[in-house]
Amino acid sequence: MEENLKSLQKLTECFKRLPGIGSKSAERMAYAILDEDNEFVKTFSDALLDVKNKIHRCNVCGLYTENDDVCDICRDNTRNKQKIIVVSYPRDVIPFEKLKTLDATYHVLHGVISPIQGINIEDLNFVSLQKRIEENGVEEVILAMNPTIEGDITAIYIAKLLQPYNIKITRLAYGLPMGGTLEYADSLTLAKAIEGRNKIEEE
Amino acid sequence: MEENLKSLQKLTECFKRLPGIGSKSAERMAYAILDEDNEFVKTFSDALLDVKNKIHRCNVCGLYTENDDVCDICRDNTRNKQKIIVVSYPRDVIPFEKLKTLDATYHVLHGVISPIQGINIEDLNFVSLQKRIEENGVEEVILAMNPTIEGDITAIYIAKLLQPYNIKITRLAYGLPMGGTLEYADSLTLAKAIEGRNKIEEE
Repeated sequence: MEENLKSLQKLTECFKRLPGIGSKSAERMAYAILDEDNEFVKTFSDALLDVKNKIHRCNVCGLYTENDDVCDICRDNTRNKQKIIVVSYPRDVIPFEKLKTLDATYHVLHGVISPIQGINIEDLNFVSLQKRIEENGVEEVILAMNPTIEGDITAIYIAKLLQPYNIKITRLAYGLPMGGTLEYADSLTLAKAIEGRNKIEEE
Repeated sequence: MEENLKSLQKLTECFKRLPGIGSKSAERMAYAILDEDNEFVKTFSDALLDVKNKIHRCNVCGLYTENDDVCDICRDNTRNKQKIIVVSYPRDVIPFEKLKTLDATYHVLHGVISPIQGINIEDLNFVSLQKRIEENGVEEVILAMNPTIEGDITAIYIAKLLQPYNIKITRLAYGLPMGGTLEYADSLTLAKAIEGRNKIEEE
């Protein structure tokens, strides 16, 4: 980049801070902004501020919402509030919402326990989960952390935390993806598939 | 994405308009903004506006600059102004500037001739190139368009346009990249390498 374009360098640095964006892509994006019309750039600039100003966490489940207090899912009285899917991040809710067959509500931890990254138990949304269970007669908590070390630790912690409530606690199954072939399965996935193997019952 | 997060959707649409960004990446970036601190988001928002407000084209060569009139390269009196490298886009200058051995100035067309995309001769920076040649006694014009159909058409157009000036007009060589092996060369590159083959002279 030409050394004198300070404003372009600053914008490139901003793009670079986004997930999955390296130096080259960030530079390309900054140059693309130069070629955009003023109206779009104003819209983009405002959209960044709007997202931070208008969106906050739902008081009940921790999902992002533009409502003042409680998100649309928690407000919806036709939803099954006795079944709670616990996810690490708000985005993890999207694939569940695409499953039209599922009837449940969510609880977002906003992270996983990771002492290395300085994320401890008190930083995550556990107390509000306990509160929901105590107040609403929850039947099942489905843990949907990713199958990483941190995800596993977090799931085990929640399972222990909720043991006194005597409710059903389950975790998503991990194994071979549907449509995939054994030939291309990585060894970690295969190990999970073997670990979680099911007995075939004759009916 | 949760349907009620209008501001997040709007930001996602903005990211999606950037080069090389699909729906999934745009969504991920928008969510990343939510997790950023207010200070960074304000900086980012301002940086977008700054780029549009502070940067404009150099009056001489068309490169982007934050100066009022002429860019630092055109201002630099130690530069060889008799040798002009013509590029399609401002970013194309970066690899040349990294070559510390090269002494030349640039001319940026801001596009290539492409009737399909509605980019015609009058949209590109040709008149100012002719003006430079007429006024400054240019010795050589090096054409550095990409080896695409539009790049070829543009190079041929410039070569014809500049014929009356009786100056040296050259184009970058295309062929096998250094360090690459024949085994992995694509057929277009190989065809270019054969087309541009050089006779080995005994010294």
